[in-house]
Amino acid sequence: MTDAREPAAAGNPASHPYAARRRMIAEALSGRRLDALLVALSPNLRYLSGFTGSNGYLLLSAERALLFTDPRYLLQARQECLGAAGPSRAFEIRIAKGPLVPAVASAISRFRWRRIGYEPARMTCDAFEALKAKLPARASLTAAGGWIESLRAIKSLAEIDLIRRSVVTNSRAFEQAAARLRPGMKESDLAAEIEYRMRRLGAEKPSFETIVASGRRTALPHAQPTAAQIVPESLVLVDMGSQQDGYCSDMTRMLFLGNPTPQVKRTYRAVLEAQLAAIDAVRPGARTADVDAAARSVLQAHGLEEAFVHSTGHGLGLEIHEPPRIGRRDKTRLAPGMAITIEPGVYLEDFGGIRIEDTVAVTAHGCEILTPTPKELRIL
Amino acid sequence: MTDAREPAAAGNPASHPYAARRRMIAEALSGRRLDALLVALSPNLRYLSGFTGSNGYLLLSAERALLFTDPRYLLQARQECLGAAGPSRAFEIRIAKGPLVPAVASAISRFRWRRIGYEPARMTCDAFEALKAKLPARASLTAAGGWIESLRAIKSLAEIDLIRRSVVTNSRAFEQAAARLRPGMKESDLAAEIEYRMRRLGAEKPSFETIVASGRRTALPHAQPTAAQIVPESLVLVDMGSQQDGYCSDMTRMLFLGNPTPQVKRTYRAVLEAQLAAIDAVRPGARTADVDAAARSVLQAHGLEEAFVHSTGHGLGLEIHEPPRIGRRDKTRLAPGMAITIEPGVYLEDFGGIRIEDTVAVTAHGCEILTPTPKELRIL
Repeated sequence: MTDAREPAAAGNPASHPYAARRRMIAEALSGRRLDALLVALSPNLRYLSGFTGSNGYLLLSAERALLFTDPRYLLQARQECLGAAGPSRAFEIRIAKGPLVPAVASAISRFRWRRIGYEPARMTCDAFEALKAKLPARASLTAAGGWIESLRAIKSLAEIDLIRRSVVTNSRAFEQAAARLRPGMKESDLAAEIEYRMRRLGAEKPSFETIVASGRRTALPHAQPTAAQIVPESLVLVDMGSQQDGYCSDMTRMLFLGNPTPQVKRTYRAVLEAQLAAIDAVRPGARTADVDAAARSVLQAHGLEEAFVHSTGHGLGLEIHEPPRIGRRDKTRLAPGMAITIEPGVYLEDFGGIRIEDTVAVTAHGCEILTPTPKELRIL
Repeated sequence: MTDAREPAAAGNPASHPYAARRRMIAEALSGRRLDALLVALSPNLRYLSGFTGSNGYLLLSAERALLFTDPRYLLQARQECLGAAGPSRAFEIRIAKGPLVPAVASAISRFRWRRIGYEPARMTCDAFEALKAKLPARASLTAAGGWIESLRAIKSLAEIDLIRRSVVTNSRAFEQAAARLRPGMKESDLAAEIEYRMRRLGAEKPSFETIVASGRRTALPHAQPTAAQIVPESLVLVDMGSQQDGYCSDMTRMLFLGNPTPQVKRTYRAVLEAQLAAIDAVRPGARTADVDAAARSVLQAHGLEEAFVHSTGHGLGLEIHEPPRIGRRDKTRLAPGMAITIEPGVYLEDFGGIRIEDTVAVTAHGCEILTPTPKELRIL
């Protein structure tokens, strides 16, 4: 799980993660003969600059890094970006009143850059056309997607630690909220309790909208919590994640208020078996499709394959869903430093749904389950 | 504030809001000689279909409405969309395993549609290129942006009521949380308390990341709450919004722990005067630039114009920022049914920031301030 690309930050500014990430971009630019890469507002921009404002563009060449934002974020950009880079590679902050695209185009013009890479998955058609219309005639735009996502897929030790902290916050919030669950509580109140606890424990926010579903509604894989009361003798699905210092966690646990029926117990055991089989398949070099197949074949053996309507998991980091995807047709080879979820589930309209999910880090020889919460069906 | 486009829902399915909205789209398609409009996942899709899942496309022709999503959302799509439309204009739900774009393209092909409108501000370059590559040769894509945003800018009475409910939830959450504010409390704990209260009062979530800043950090217009303690003799800025049944609210209030200095009192009075002047300028037919100018000229008279670094407000509804923008260069004419914020502020690096914000609805003859929270500087 070591990552030579990102040595621990030390006194030398060049060893700072942002400087290291910018070196990687400079190499990629040179390999593709591009003069600069344009990064639209997204977690990619945060990854490369530390900036967390809600409006911005980043323009990176081998030599320069320009951050464009509006006056609301002047002080924040100074705090987040100037401290983040070594003095030799400082971010130049450009404040634009009004739209940022003209300021981006005029910088491209001033530095006489000709070949500009852009990220087609991160840019809207509108922004692309607006930029194209403002560029000098000699400049052209070239799709350069997925570079930063590839860097981001392999986490540094420091990033895995941030994810671990987010995971621990999330599990503690689950325990505190579950201890308050009583028959008659609304799904939405349990979700509110969960999110309050994670905030108090240090998260900025949930990493996605907390899912609390009870009874038949557990059959909706992405149910939004409703004002429905959680009644005795019912299954409760909680899928929750924290975002802390930018990094996401993700966990699903099942609870049962009362005495689980034989079908609940049987289905739970099948899903748990599938989840353990998938975790067992996580190791460097394994293909993500094989991890997915490990879960899927267990559910098939239980006659539940048709009820498993989503993929087995996904990468997570600064975003709750990022590469690699752990699905039937995904051939990525797992590598040390990847952080992924393992979350098989089955959904039966007349019965309900059961899903079990952990956050897992790929290590040098296998994997580490970061999630500390026990995996038994929790009976209340 | 009546809106002929959206009569109150009654027994007649054609009077249902989704049916009325689809009629408007059908007219716009016919005016532009387009066969269908493609709507990517966004609040626009929710506005036209009721669907709230996290993956989807909507394809609307004069006759048909196809919703594409993945198997996770099959049951949810049925519940949200099938009930939402009259039986005569039912949504056809298409479930695709894997990417949705090929399914969209094959529907376009099957119905022999040729001219397809798309929303360039809602579609990434990647999605656009993927779709273009899959379309039959006879089909072409035409930019058709802003249609749905224009419809959405004028709220129906039912929508204004939803915004009002969200505003009331938000103000109640503010009162409950402010009552718990004590010296030594962390900014992030006050934010957690605010969000917990709004959830318990019926909101799905905050409509944006709650801003709690104290002391000098109030000079950051979009400060994220930190672990800093709120200490005596300091200014506290709270900018918060709820999202309830999809609709957003937005409010900023200032608190002071202790005895405000003369500069705090003077600056507060100037911002309040600017805010009242801007609200006074809100009426049908007024230009948004004039509303902005009303606030800006008051601050200029106080020598604070340079410290007002953002626009006076923005529309809100299913999104926290939607048209119209209330800025220096925005010429939109206000119309009954618009819901906007009025939020002048001043930010001085060595002093701090002060902002006062209400949610306001444009009525037939003027405006209604929806926000019930008193506007005095709250001294604790």
